[in-house]
Amino acid sequence: MTSIAICAPACPITPEDAARVEAIAGDYGASVHIHPQCYASAGHFAGDDALRLAAFLECANDPAFDAVWFARGGYGSNRIAQNAVAQLGAAAAHKCYMGYSDMGYLLGALYRARVGRVCHGPMVADGRRDGGEAALRRALGYFTGEREGLEPSLADEKHPVAAFNLTTLAMLAGTPIMPGLAGHVVMIEEVSEHLYAIDRLMFHVTAHLGGVAGVRLGRVSDVPDNDRPFGAEAQEIVADWCARHAIPYLGRADIGHDADNHVVPFGLATGVHPQ
Amino acid sequence: MTSIAICAPACPITPEDAARVEAIAGDYGASVHIHPQCYASAGHFAGDDALRLAAFLECANDPAFDAVWFARGGYGSNRIAQNAVAQLGAAAAHKCYMGYSDMGYLLGALYRARVGRVCHGPMVADGRRDGGEAALRRALGYFTGEREGLEPSLADEKHPVAAFNLTTLAMLAGTPIMPGLAGHVVMIEEVSEHLYAIDRLMFHVTAHLGGVAGVRLGRVSDVPDNDRPFGAEAQEIVADWCARHAIPYLGRADIGHDADNHVVPFGLATGVHPQ
Repeated sequence: MTSIAICAPACPITPEDAARVEAIAGDYGASVHIHPQCYASAGHFAGDDALRLAAFLECANDPAFDAVWFARGGYGSNRIAQNAVAQLGAAAAHKCYMGYSDMGYLLGALYRARVGRVCHGPMVADGRRDGGEAALRRALGYFTGEREGLEPSLADEKHPVAAFNLTTLAMLAGTPIMPGLAGHVVMIEEVSEHLYAIDRLMFHVTAHLGGVAGVRLGRVSDVPDNDRPFGAEAQEIVADWCARHAIPYLGRADIGHDADNHVVPFGLATGVHPQ
Repeated sequence: MTSIAICAPACPITPEDAARVEAIAGDYGASVHIHPQCYASAGHFAGDDALRLAAFLECANDPAFDAVWFARGGYGSNRIAQNAVAQLGAAAAHKCYMGYSDMGYLLGALYRARVGRVCHGPMVADGRRDGGEAALRRALGYFTGEREGLEPSLADEKHPVAAFNLTTLAMLAGTPIMPGLAGHVVMIEEVSEHLYAIDRLMFHVTAHLGGVAGVRLGRVSDVPDNDRPFGAEAQEIVADWCARHAIPYLGRADIGHDADNHVVPFGLATGVHPQ
């Protein structure tokens, strides 16, 4: 039986969120263990930094768990990610870690430290979405050995890969938890940002992606209306900034802030870290 | 007579904006020259990149002008700043350049290249604000030799200084136009960002400000309501991230997206670039 620990390094979930996962985990021969910290609240966060850090460490450092599943994004994992990775023990090394959006800070920090199998993929709170059960089942399937939920371009990808929310990657860049991405295909996605902000983020991110093998663009959703049209669509913006830095733009990726968000395990498809 | 060229490296202004400046420039013995590009429009921008770049270069490289005043922020100067600085001639070297917000990309690029006297201060479009005439007069006064409009902490400041919009500084960090700010007091201000976004930007920016002499916080205005309180105010957030990186937090600065925005000339108060 695959044993999955759930914690919330950013914002809290509700018991209803947890119940949606508990109702279907048995279909995959998985047991899920919801850390009570998932329901904590302190201002913006699911408990203060110390509580969120302790819960993550309890999940990651417990040899009884095979995977750590992040409950929800929002904002806040960057505040604990550096300390979190520094306090991981041997039991953390062989787990699978899955999340996206704000969880990119932790995914980046874990990947930089070469800890575990780091995956960009659905979270517990995605059960709230229309069709969200499919997202939960995609994650549970991946944790328990299915590979149908993998992002489709990975089938033919020879480079190591990584995937991030664009804002998260922009804020990671140049910090002590930014992983080296030279030689990687980097997938990005975004939600609820104006197109001018996408352009601005791409200006920044492409300046930090020297040596990457290429960029793929996931979905850019819920773009707010501006007082005037920007003059280019998201894919044109991304391709333009890639071209300015001689980064190959490789087309679309099947990731995004939605129920269709597919699983992207960081590194090589073989599961071996690139050297 | 001080001759001031006005161009718009990001978003356009209207003839009404220009008229507000023209009506009072004579009080300062200044002549203002509005480049027609200020009224151009191409999607989000005041003309496409080539037009905005050409207008800036015409203003900066013309020996007849003593100053280049940026008309308005918005978004877009980052798209031309690196090319702009690369094409400056000798006549650009002794001019004063003033703007803020999105103009921080150009201010940063100019300061990095040690071109001219770079100032964070009011722009032409500030005439639209309540009390905006005072902002226009503060800028015109500075261009023509008055020093009453200087940010007050500068009177006792022995370190070189720089000032930026926080988002702009975050996006500049690590790019080819980011100036070295070691030893500087860095002033920041922000508008229309959630407090969680301020926290996220400070996480990023403080990781890039190693070796600065300190940080001062200008006004953080028009913070949108979130679905729950963040749990800390802007000044606490800034002081916390400074403390995490052992950067002295020095208190407030009299800058912001408002009519009281004071003038911050980059570098030492003597006008000499730090070595």
